[in-house]
Amino acid sequence: MHSSYDVIVVGAGHAGCEAANAAATMGSKVLLITMNMQTIAQMSCNPAMGGVAKGQIVREVDALGGLSGIISDKSMIQFRMLNRSKGPAMWSPRCQSDRNVFAWEWRKALEGNSRIDFWQDTVNEILVKDGKVSGVKTSLGVEFLAGAVVLTNGTFLNGRMFIGEKVFGGGRTAERSATGLTEQLVTLGFESGRMKTGTPPRVDGRSLNYAAMEEQFGDEQPGKFSYMDTPVLTNQRSCWITYTNQEVHEELKTGFDKSPMFTGRIKGLGPRYCPSVEDKINRFADKDRHQIFVEPEGWDTVEVYVNGFSTSLPETVQYNALRKIPGFENVRMFRPGYAVEYDFFPPTQLKPTLETQLVKNLFFAGQINGTTGYEEAACQGLMAGINAHRNVSEEDEFTIKRSEGYIGVLIDDLITKGTEEPYRMFTSRAEYRTLLRQDNADLRLTEKGYKIGLAAEERYQKMVAKKEDVSLLTDAIRAAKVKPEEINNWLAAKSSAPLREKSNLYTLLKRPEIELKDIKELLEILPDMPGVGEEIIEQTVIEIKYEDYLSREKLNAEKLDKWENLSINPSFDYDRLKALSFEGKEKLKRLRPATIGQASRISGVSPSDVSILLVYLGR
Amino acid sequence: MHSSYDVIVVGAGHAGCEAANAAATMGSKVLLITMNMQTIAQMSCNPAMGGVAKGQIVREVDALGGLSGIISDKSMIQFRMLNRSKGPAMWSPRCQSDRNVFAWEWRKALEGNSRIDFWQDTVNEILVKDGKVSGVKTSLGVEFLAGAVVLTNGTFLNGRMFIGEKVFGGGRTAERSATGLTEQLVTLGFESGRMKTGTPPRVDGRSLNYAAMEEQFGDEQPGKFSYMDTPVLTNQRSCWITYTNQEVHEELKTGFDKSPMFTGRIKGLGPRYCPSVEDKINRFADKDRHQIFVEPEGWDTVEVYVNGFSTSLPETVQYNALRKIPGFENVRMFRPGYAVEYDFFPPTQLKPTLETQLVKNLFFAGQINGTTGYEEAACQGLMAGINAHRNVSEEDEFTIKRSEGYIGVLIDDLITKGTEEPYRMFTSRAEYRTLLRQDNADLRLTEKGYKIGLAAEERYQKMVAKKEDVSLLTDAIRAAKVKPEEINNWLAAKSSAPLREKSNLYTLLKRPEIELKDIKELLEILPDMPGVGEEIIEQTVIEIKYEDYLSREKLNAEKLDKWENLSINPSFDYDRLKALSFEGKEKLKRLRPATIGQASRISGVSPSDVSILLVYLGR
Repeated sequence: MHSSYDVIVVGAGHAGCEAANAAATMGSKVLLITMNMQTIAQMSCNPAMGGVAKGQIVREVDALGGLSGIISDKSMIQFRMLNRSKGPAMWSPRCQSDRNVFAWEWRKALEGNSRIDFWQDTVNEILVKDGKVSGVKTSLGVEFLAGAVVLTNGTFLNGRMFIGEKVFGGGRTAERSATGLTEQLVTLGFESGRMKTGTPPRVDGRSLNYAAMEEQFGDEQPGKFSYMDTPVLTNQRSCWITYTNQEVHEELKTGFDKSPMFTGRIKGLGPRYCPSVEDKINRFADKDRHQIFVEPEGWDTVEVYVNGFSTSLPETVQYNALRKIPGFENVRMFRPGYAVEYDFFPPTQLKPTLETQLVKNLFFAGQINGTTGYEEAACQGLMAGINAHRNVSEEDEFTIKRSEGYIGVLIDDLITKGTEEPYRMFTSRAEYRTLLRQDNADLRLTEKGYKIGLAAEERYQKMVAKKEDVSLLTDAIRAAKVKPEEINNWLAAKSSAPLREKSNLYTLLKRPEIELKDIKELLEILPDMPGVGEEIIEQTVIEIKYEDYLSREKLNAEKLDKWENLSINPSFDYDRLKALSFEGKEKLKRLRPATIGQASRISGVSPSDVSILLVYLGR
Repeated sequence: MHSSYDVIVVGAGHAGCEAANAAATMGSKVLLITMNMQTIAQMSCNPAMGGVAKGQIVREVDALGGLSGIISDKSMIQFRMLNRSKGPAMWSPRCQSDRNVFAWEWRKALEGNSRIDFWQDTVNEILVKDGKVSGVKTSLGVEFLAGAVVLTNGTFLNGRMFIGEKVFGGGRTAERSATGLTEQLVTLGFESGRMKTGTPPRVDGRSLNYAAMEEQFGDEQPGKFSYMDTPVLTNQRSCWITYTNQEVHEELKTGFDKSPMFTGRIKGLGPRYCPSVEDKINRFADKDRHQIFVEPEGWDTVEVYVNGFSTSLPETVQYNALRKIPGFENVRMFRPGYAVEYDFFPPTQLKPTLETQLVKNLFFAGQINGTTGYEEAACQGLMAGINAHRNVSEEDEFTIKRSEGYIGVLIDDLITKGTEEPYRMFTSRAEYRTLLRQDNADLRLTEKGYKIGLAAEERYQKMVAKKEDVSLLTDAIRAAKVKPEEINNWLAAKSSAPLREKSNLYTLLKRPEIELKDIKELLEILPDMPGVGEEIIEQTVIEIKYEDYLSREKLNAEKLDKWENLSINPSFDYDRLKALSFEGKEKLKRLRPATIGQASRISGVSPSDVSILLVYLGR
């Protein structure tokens, strides 16, 4: 009934939207299939984008030409750069979003792409021909043909929701689950597992006493995610902070015997670093309180998200416990929190492109790969969409190295280590996090995105101009000598030692007490400095202040890159290497890394195992 | 777990939203229970409000203090006053709506009412104590107590959706149905039935060739629904008109053997006056084409509603048939049309307040009563909400007479005649439709709404001012004598006979060739006319031009009012009246009308039956 497509994307959450947009922007004819056109780009859990490590991912997606950054900018109601007090590698943009505006902006963007068609339906079968995907079949019985298929089913595959002792089939509150697809994939040879995630109750902001909480304002000078000219917030909504206490914990404990987590009715593992509140008080019994972030759901709604209070305890227990939280004494709930258990496919079954090893041109992205988080999903969708397009166009695979971006770290972690519990990004997962900063994602990735036809010309030119400006300013700073009379007053104000003689500005900037935020002011009082924007100053000064550290990191990364490219024969006989550790040998045999780089990151494979391998391979 | 409420409203469609707002505005503490807070005030079918007779209802709801008019005004993308070429009784406001804005404006309005709480859940049991409703129980097992309950379940009660030979449980596309409630109501003694409705496919506006269709613009001077100061459109989106043809019909017929309508799998009757396209070509085999209105779904979406093409034929048949429609040659569907079958409760089980006869303080409103249409639902919700509030406050019942409003006609029709198929309003259903105009709903109803505490002071004062201005202008016109030299040129331009001598303006205005739209111009060239707005002129001149007719109608209405109030003993022994017609007697015995007025409108009860009754009752 329909013409065939280059790429079919199943699911229209963060992963599906990025996948559809990427493939279509690069030239593929795309069909986006969603169970409900009214719920495209629904934020199923918290109304926020970014955060530690996650904000960096959004900037990387943006740098490559994805849309998550632009849409976050258009829909944000508050912006904060987290970790400003730490080094720039830790700076992480985060925003609160208007849930409705976010979804609508995505829908508008996708509708605005003439190469994307839409179909509302549930996919319950993948069509495969000679080991290669050929299309999908839906619950209406419609068959759509395609060169490649990207599955981004989120929590919908055999989704089951839990509240206390009650269980409902469904992928998200009040929405149906999708059945049949997992079963078919298993018959094709895929291994599947169960995971669990959860969400807190939503409450009525009109019933809260904000005077009993701590107000959390947005940044005075709010930043944004996109490197493009998206609007900057002129007005922001506050969040609020409050805490659980022993009374809250006691109330929660009254429901433990009915908790689907503790009674074993939920089999799948939940996200360790985004645990339910019952998990927190269970695992951290010594902590007498946990922080709660009270987050508005948009510009003009009273609905409030209770961040930190994810739970699947019975709704009356949720309610009674909430009421013991300062500021929540008279709380009214809109709906209880719940847990949802769903199918995932261990991501060790994937190639670095997110294509499955078993079925050619079939890609998986998002929670179906065992990850958690909007940003983790979005970047996988982007990479799957790019590679789906490139596969059908018979172009080379497109990957990002661990030293080039968090996206590279995430995908490499998934496909080499797999994951037992929902995988979330942290800065600590990146070996070279000082290189993978939020300020330089464009310098790292925009050229790559441009070369494959995803990042637009304008984006590329902006990056080139930024690079030139940074180089201009760097040269000016390197050339500049400052005289004591020009600067000593300013230094005194910053409690920095005065100059005795004319000195190099370059060296001076490395003084730790001279902070990044002061340098704009300093450059203004000096002669012969080029007039450049704050972004350029920030970028330049970060590179100067951390120069030694960054060059060392770059060197290390290059060394790793050499290993990275050193391939290991897939049928390599590890048993021959008697010196390997027992655990290392077992893991290597099971996971069969394609390169030394991958081998080095398998948990259980020790540095000495890697050395042994290197020796054997002739290094 | 929750405090108890005065009124619980189940369902948040047009009926539920109006019910919650009315009861809360009048002072009740209200809980609105919806299956999904993201779908409050979803327009399940076409993105439009008003239309013939329906537009009048929206204005009546507005006049009483309901919100449908204000929200329609805030969300419209096009406005047309239908039937302008006919008499003012036929004038009917209609707008195209932005589906998303409409829903969001409702949500904002409800959240803005401090007496409305929200709960997301499915009600599957009514709590009853001593024949009186005491609350509800939800699928989460939560019990909420209340003095009154309003059920507005729409198409969700045991909803089943049909596309060709496929059947899905659900109340609306991609949404679950609600089970258990019908069954419980039946055990309480309620009679239930099945009805059917349907919706057309949604298509991609980017795939249509508008050049092959006829553009339908909004009015040059767009009106609006509310009597309050809502914004007037400054910019509008067009609709488009095209037609089916024999080729389309032939394609559709290829699916008839799989049609759930024709194979008998759908048992419920569908809306006769909003039939599916397969019904139209089946029932009107002689018609070689049917009109299709191509309606945009909002300001900034490419989704398009194919009005006139409601269908539950297999999706490939829908697709192939669509492609034969001029302008649709390359159409892409977003989703197929479908039929939905659901439970309703024959409305003869209701009192004039929409309270059920069986269970005190339990009210039904909307499709659950066998009606179809947003406007029909909204006004029932409003009346049920008002009366739920008044019941719990121990105030008198609030009703509207047939001669006072379409709302009165609708409810009286429902409770006295019942309905076998989805009931839709038409102007022909009103005996006194010349009195029930869209221009005077405020004059008819605002005082009533004000007296019960629903219409706000400002609304009441606006109505009083309008009345005064009309009276001022009427007096001025009655007093005015016009001289031939003042007016003959103008009359000539209107092809109206010149005056020979000084004449009464009042009489002159009754000339049929002097149209309402010209009179503003005329009054401006005459001396001593008060400066009043167009609305006042329109209102005044309608009353003058149709004076004789309107007074006769008013007299008739008053006569009927006397009958209306003449009550019949519920245990009246109709068998004693041998002269009654057989059918009349059977209907009277079954329906047991409370008044002569009700008796007179029962189909099958003839005027002579009414005379016999009147004689017996002593008139």
